[in-house]
Amino acid sequence: MTTLANYRDHLAEMRKLNSAASLLGWDQQTHMPPKAAPHRAQVIGKLSRMVFELSISDQLGGFLADLRKDGGLSPLEKASVRKVGKDYDRNRAVPPEFVEQFQIAQSEAQAAWIAARKANDFASFQPHLEKIVEFARRLAEYYGYEDHPYDALLEDYEPGMTCKQLRAIIEPLKCDLVPFLRDLATHGTPPDKSVVHGSFDPDALRRLSRRALELIQYDFEAGALDDVAHPFTATIGPGDVRITNRYPTDSFMPSLLGALHEGGHALYNQGFPEELYMLGLAGGSSNGIHESQSRMIENQIGRSRAFWQFFQPVLAEHFPQYGSGSPEALYRAVNVVEPSLIRVEADEVTYNLHIMLRFEIEAGLIDGSIAVADLPALWNQAMSDYLGIVPPNDAQGVLQDVHWSMGYIGYFPSYMLGNLYAAQMLPKIRKALPTLDADIRRGDMKPLLGWLRENVHRHGATYQPNELIERITGHPLDPAHFVRYVKEKYSDIYGL
Amino acid sequence: MTTLANYRDHLAEMRKLNSAASLLGWDQQTHMPPKAAPHRAQVIGKLSRMVFELSISDQLGGFLADLRKDGGLSPLEKASVRKVGKDYDRNRAVPPEFVEQFQIAQSEAQAAWIAARKANDFASFQPHLEKIVEFARRLAEYYGYEDHPYDALLEDYEPGMTCKQLRAIIEPLKCDLVPFLRDLATHGTPPDKSVVHGSFDPDALRRLSRRALELIQYDFEAGALDDVAHPFTATIGPGDVRITNRYPTDSFMPSLLGALHEGGHALYNQGFPEELYMLGLAGGSSNGIHESQSRMIENQIGRSRAFWQFFQPVLAEHFPQYGSGSPEALYRAVNVVEPSLIRVEADEVTYNLHIMLRFEIEAGLIDGSIAVADLPALWNQAMSDYLGIVPPNDAQGVLQDVHWSMGYIGYFPSYMLGNLYAAQMLPKIRKALPTLDADIRRGDMKPLLGWLRENVHRHGATYQPNELIERITGHPLDPAHFVRYVKEKYSDIYGL
Repeated sequence: MTTLANYRDHLAEMRKLNSAASLLGWDQQTHMPPKAAPHRAQVIGKLSRMVFELSISDQLGGFLADLRKDGGLSPLEKASVRKVGKDYDRNRAVPPEFVEQFQIAQSEAQAAWIAARKANDFASFQPHLEKIVEFARRLAEYYGYEDHPYDALLEDYEPGMTCKQLRAIIEPLKCDLVPFLRDLATHGTPPDKSVVHGSFDPDALRRLSRRALELIQYDFEAGALDDVAHPFTATIGPGDVRITNRYPTDSFMPSLLGALHEGGHALYNQGFPEELYMLGLAGGSSNGIHESQSRMIENQIGRSRAFWQFFQPVLAEHFPQYGSGSPEALYRAVNVVEPSLIRVEADEVTYNLHIMLRFEIEAGLIDGSIAVADLPALWNQAMSDYLGIVPPNDAQGVLQDVHWSMGYIGYFPSYMLGNLYAAQMLPKIRKALPTLDADIRRGDMKPLLGWLRENVHRHGATYQPNELIERITGHPLDPAHFVRYVKEKYSDIYGL
Repeated sequence: MTTLANYRDHLAEMRKLNSAASLLGWDQQTHMPPKAAPHRAQVIGKLSRMVFELSISDQLGGFLADLRKDGGLSPLEKASVRKVGKDYDRNRAVPPEFVEQFQIAQSEAQAAWIAARKANDFASFQPHLEKIVEFARRLAEYYGYEDHPYDALLEDYEPGMTCKQLRAIIEPLKCDLVPFLRDLATHGTPPDKSVVHGSFDPDALRRLSRRALELIQYDFEAGALDDVAHPFTATIGPGDVRITNRYPTDSFMPSLLGALHEGGHALYNQGFPEELYMLGLAGGSSNGIHESQSRMIENQIGRSRAFWQFFQPVLAEHFPQYGSGSPEALYRAVNVVEPSLIRVEADEVTYNLHIMLRFEIEAGLIDGSIAVADLPALWNQAMSDYLGIVPPNDAQGVLQDVHWSMGYIGYFPSYMLGNLYAAQMLPKIRKALPTLDADIRRGDMKPLLGWLRENVHRHGATYQPNELIERITGHPLDPAHFVRYVKEKYSDIYGL
């Protein structure tokens, strides 16, 4: 067998074990009975370890060394060697004992975070977070970086992105968004949001989610919709990308927008050609690009006027009280802007502000300019500066997110970048599909999906996010698109 | 580490991979989307191969050789070495190329069987079945046997059982059942079975199954109930034993009795102590003993007068049309005896007759006294002799079961043995629990479960079936118990 064939076999082994681990993880959140938990943790641990061992094996190292010198590879094969090789180099750079100790620290920090948030007691979480930060700083040293240690961590979530670039994106964005938010609050006329509230049957909500997923062309023959406490999308393997959702009964909004959000992720993953799976390139270009797909379907489509012109009668089929309502009232109601304490519930205008404050804290923690002990005060100050509100306690403030306790430092920027990538793609889409709004108004999402498949999905992880956005739009990421998008949309809604 | 600790670690590896394979298999039948099928087959194949390789590894062989000489093992550890060692010896006795060729033949035979049954064309299946029989005969030679080659195959399903013993069980059973069946048909008054038919909402049927499972003390905290085309029970691991069911809408009977049947299997598997999982002894003593648990809950409990005295109001809660019916009418209706063409729909009296004819054919195929080409005629003759009816075609005759095409030869007797084991246990249970019927009448199944846990479940695969039945009842398997049970019950119902 050639090295390439051996390399592909090696990736196939990893893919199969990964697929089993993904199913075990999906099942853990959806169908697994509670008494199975201790055993399940062992099974997932075993499979994850096997995949990790394959990802750093000497055998793989040998294949990669040969293939890096091989001039006869196809572009896809080259991209595979680049991506798999990068993961190999990074994973080999970290001593196994460090990985184990970091994992123990993460487990302990998660337990401590749950208790601390419940008791509203940051002090009890502080030593754990200090440990996590210390591990993250050491990890950055193992990985290596040119400019800022945070760059080494960012690489896991947004390959190629740097702290410096992020600052260059965030500064102008902040300067536009913060005053715009104040304008909306002081001079705008807020829509009536009461129309989205009421009492909703969960089975009807589930059917509505299903209908919305069919509408966006999610392929149920290659997926499923299951109930879960915290929604996510699971890619089990080729032909198997599953969505999960939850159904709070006091509004149709969380479950509907949740379905569209996860649906956006799932469309991406359903769009990877089989060959990408074979080459370890099935996965998004980055977390940010992935988030661009979910945020686009959720917000730029799901909260658009055209969408509600089509969807109001669909909503009324499931909830007859909406039979007499106007699409416009629904459109306006789902687009209320309100500074809130909790990121995950934030609207399009305030969402990025939540992310900025977290990014600034993370970068400061990693370069040592911010101490963990100062976080509660810093958090509250930033909330006041950016959003004009101050959390009444740390549980709703600095303790609200699970990410840091899990050792995810460098993850938050992806959420913001997703919004920006999506806003930069949208004018290109409108240009390519001049009838986009008319299509949406009659419930035809096929043209949109066709564009996303062709320009984003089919490439999987072949291109880095900066390469991909340039390929699609002709220039690097520029937050001006997003600013234009929100100002136009919300000035109209708020009558500015 | 001691050899024992290493051995336990080895079993733990096997257990974890087996657990992943079980979940993949369960998911394949319940939730997996159709487009995932080709990839899923590869993933399950990979994990099964890994488990198999661990089960025949030289390392395990070394541990077993040491432990077989170790005088200090506990009784459970000894049972573990006996069982794991037997599987090791048998698997090592078969050349890997043979295993592969047999698997290919099975895949081909299954496809051929599906087509042949559809086209009612035994001739097209014949060469495949001839191949399967030839492989099965060679397998018996690899495994080795003392008396009859069929004994070597039986060992997979009913350890310790032999062809000779089976014949000694079947002969008297046949002599009692065949004339009794004729008596029922000619002198008995059949109950009115129309009461179990009608039109039933599948959601209500599902809730009824759930209610029935709660009643028999199935633990939903360590299990789940999912929809499926062909019901089965999946043991994913400790604390995770899942039931599946289907809901035909023309009668409440198939889904209710299906739930009780799978529930009986599941109670067994939920009753294995954690330590049995650690020692590779989590599993039934045999397929026959496993079937005794499912058939007991389905038939000896679920089709008993006491059960219907409790369950009629429960049925009426789900289907109000049963509010005015009598428990006695329901009891009688679910116990109609009718010779039928299809085994899986057979009642308590005729079921074993279906098995006998299959056993006689299988034993003859393996010792060469029967040729595959003669099966259709032999099948029809036996149906006529035992059940008094002749299939109108081979699709409903010799082609009805999937087992042979899958290479399962020696499996069918388990179904019959389950009925016999259960009937032999029941008098012991009644003696230990004199208020059994009264308990069931008020819906209290805890005493019964307590007895089964203590006498059957907690032992898992520690004892061979012949050891277990002797331990419980004081004597070897004797079909007289079953004959007494059906004659008493059905003479009463049919007014003989």
